[in-house]
Amino acid sequence: MTAPPTTIPDAAQLTARLIRCPSVTPDEGGALVLLADLLGAAGFECHRVDREGVPNLFARWGARGARSFGFNGHTDVVPPGDPASWTHPPFSGHEEDGWIWGRGATDMKSGVAAFAAAAIGFVTETPPDGAVILAITGDEEGPGKHGTRALLDWMAATGERMDVCIVGEPSNPDRLGEMIKIGRRGSMTLRIEAQGVQGHAAYPHRARNPIHALLELLHELTAAPLDAGTAHFDPSGLQVTTVDCGNPASNVIPERARATVNIRFNDAQSSESLDRMVRERAAAISARTGVDFAIATEVSGESFLTAPGPFVDLVAGVVRQETGLDPALSTSGGTSDARFVKDHCPVLEFGLVGHFMHQVDERVPAEQVRQLARIYRRILERYFA
Amino acid sequence: MTAPPTTIPDAAQLTARLIRCPSVTPDEGGALVLLADLLGAAGFECHRVDREGVPNLFARWGARGARSFGFNGHTDVVPPGDPASWTHPPFSGHEEDGWIWGRGATDMKSGVAAFAAAAIGFVTETPPDGAVILAITGDEEGPGKHGTRALLDWMAATGERMDVCIVGEPSNPDRLGEMIKIGRRGSMTLRIEAQGVQGHAAYPHRARNPIHALLELLHELTAAPLDAGTAHFDPSGLQVTTVDCGNPASNVIPERARATVNIRFNDAQSSESLDRMVRERAAAISARTGVDFAIATEVSGESFLTAPGPFVDLVAGVVRQETGLDPALSTSGGTSDARFVKDHCPVLEFGLVGHFMHQVDERVPAEQVRQLARIYRRILERYFA
Ligand SMILES: [Zn+2]
Ligand SMILES: [Zn+2]
Repeated sequence: MTAPPTTIPDAAQLTARLIRCPSVTPDEGGALVLLADLLGAAGFECHRVDREGVPNLFARWGARGARSFGFNGHTDVVPPGDPASWTHPPFSGHEEDGWIWGRGATDMKSGVAAFAAAAIGFVTETPPDGAVILAITGDEEGPGKHGTRALLDWMAATGERMDVCIVGEPSNPDRLGEMIKIGRRGSMTLRIEAQGVQGHAAYPHRARNPIHALLELLHELTAAPLDAGTAHFDPSGLQVTTVDCGNPASNVIPERARATVNIRFNDAQSSESLDRMVRERAAAISARTGVDFAIATEVSGESFLTAPGPFVDLVAGVVRQETGLDPALSTSGGTSDARFVKDHCPVLEFGLVGHFMHQVDERVPAEQVRQLARIYRRILERYFA
Repeated sequence: MTAPPTTIPDAAQLTARLIRCPSVTPDEGGALVLLADLLGAAGFECHRVDREGVPNLFARWGARGARSFGFNGHTDVVPPGDPASWTHPPFSGHEEDGWIWGRGATDMKSGVAAFAAAAIGFVTETPPDGAVILAITGDEEGPGKHGTRALLDWMAATGERMDVCIVGEPSNPDRLGEMIKIGRRGSMTLRIEAQGVQGHAAYPHRARNPIHALLELLHELTAAPLDAGTAHFDPSGLQVTTVDCGNPASNVIPERARATVNIRFNDAQSSESLDRMVRERAAAISARTGVDFAIATEVSGESFLTAPGPFVDLVAGVVRQETGLDPALSTSGGTSDARFVKDHCPVLEFGLVGHFMHQVDERVPAEQVRQLARIYRRILERYFA
């Protein structure tokens, strides 16, 4: 008895079907169930790796422990806002004039559809001597604590392993093929509270203005760049995202002031060195002013780099061949789940053009999704050649 | 037919009676009615000069247009807070062990009682060739728009005139006689709003962080003293009293940030020159950063000085004689209604020790109030000698 012949899904059609699953974080919305059905039918071994209410899907074709290529992505989407603002309903997957409309059309049901379709086509038509792994989470847009992390924890515990991985997040600013992300800056947030001594604005010598001390610290942090950038990274950047005091009385020096500082840092820094730098400056100002600082630091991820080499060359070569563009190797932008995958194996990010992400009327050209699927398929072919 | 002989009130007893009038701003509470009765009985011509619901009392002994000595003060008080926190009820005027207790005991029913008692005693026992004027408001602790200002407006309109004036606010830090206020710093408040362009903290080049521009401005304003002080004034002081943004998202650069700046300035500055300085600095930062600033300026009062001369010498001489202390001639502290009186005539401030002002368990030594009344009486005698 043989299995019925597998139908290879069209990446654009699969994108539309996934959009019709209302998988706003952390709702599964039917998206992972749909993927598990398709992948299972194509011979993938599928495991739901749900943790703390977050749905996740692990799928492997081929033997556990074989040489393996992985894809990572997410099916959850940010809320659509007011559906009435949309030209076509946000979960319609409406297709018109070559475009597919809906929440997740670029970020990133299309990317998931492209690698799922590419993987099914590859293992069906040219079964490799190795394994293809898809690690798909339902929580990338939310807190992300039990999404890709849970998948990687489970893989470590069960002996599952990707040798290399592509995260299918949109990576191109304007045209498919112009950019591969080979790393990401780290990201951290410091919440700083300055505590002084309240008093009357006419008698500042009897008070200690926490705002003035906080201003000194924030001025020191923003007056000069943190560094000049490194071989593969832009300079680290620091943004004060809020300062708050809430004192309504213009003749009163308040007791407390707070600020939040967000740092995106390159491989010349680490969250530890930056945290130490801020605390040392705060301590010096505190010694001079008598204003105390309390600092709470939250690290979203350290910087990382998949240094140029055979894996980067392989992906860049396929992109060049398929698109005619010479992709820039970039480490720009925000954070993604690549920051977790990098602890498991070398990881790159390559996906669609990032237009319309998180916006009303999110949409994607159907042909671009198909082109991405062709690129993924060719990458798999080269990797296992 | 002659009037019945006037009873000269005891300043301490009158303080206690005034405390029993619950005249929390803007309530009259019976305080001005009590004073008008006493002054009227002593031959003062009394006028209620109420404006916009604020009660005010003008009283003159002697002919309109005669050479005149004025006193200014207020009978309104700040709220007592929770009466249960007080050792004796805040409107009891309780007397014990030589202390008079209650809201207004130092600020400044005692001062009003002292000059009213001194004036009644003076005109009754040694009627001068001239006029004594009391201008007493029921709104000094509140907005102050229709208090002493209304009295001065009414006096200008009706041809009433003080040649010199003492404001009876507490002027002594610790001991009666150590300080006469001969002027006050000016006070102004600037409300600054910085408007930038919102964006993601990872892509600051696509945004304009209004906090960074505001930090630059506030740093420039606080980094160096505004001046080094002048002959009779301390250096001008600038305090940032609040900074607010209210941005909860640590990965978002906000669109707007606001700050309030309070400046206490001496006679080397003016509200106009300071306003111009801040606006010029803001414009320079705006030109460099693209962040716009909107600045709203509110002037509480310009600085003023009653330069040392015969009037100051007279008051200082009496204080020295009565207390044995050599009073410092100061311009320190916050603002008072002297900032309005100074446009009418030369004005000094001399009153009690400022302990317990606006606090729970406000109280005053009865003997100190009587001593202040003796000083006021002797000043009147010398002035008209
Ligand atoms: Zn995404
Ligand atoms: Zn007062």
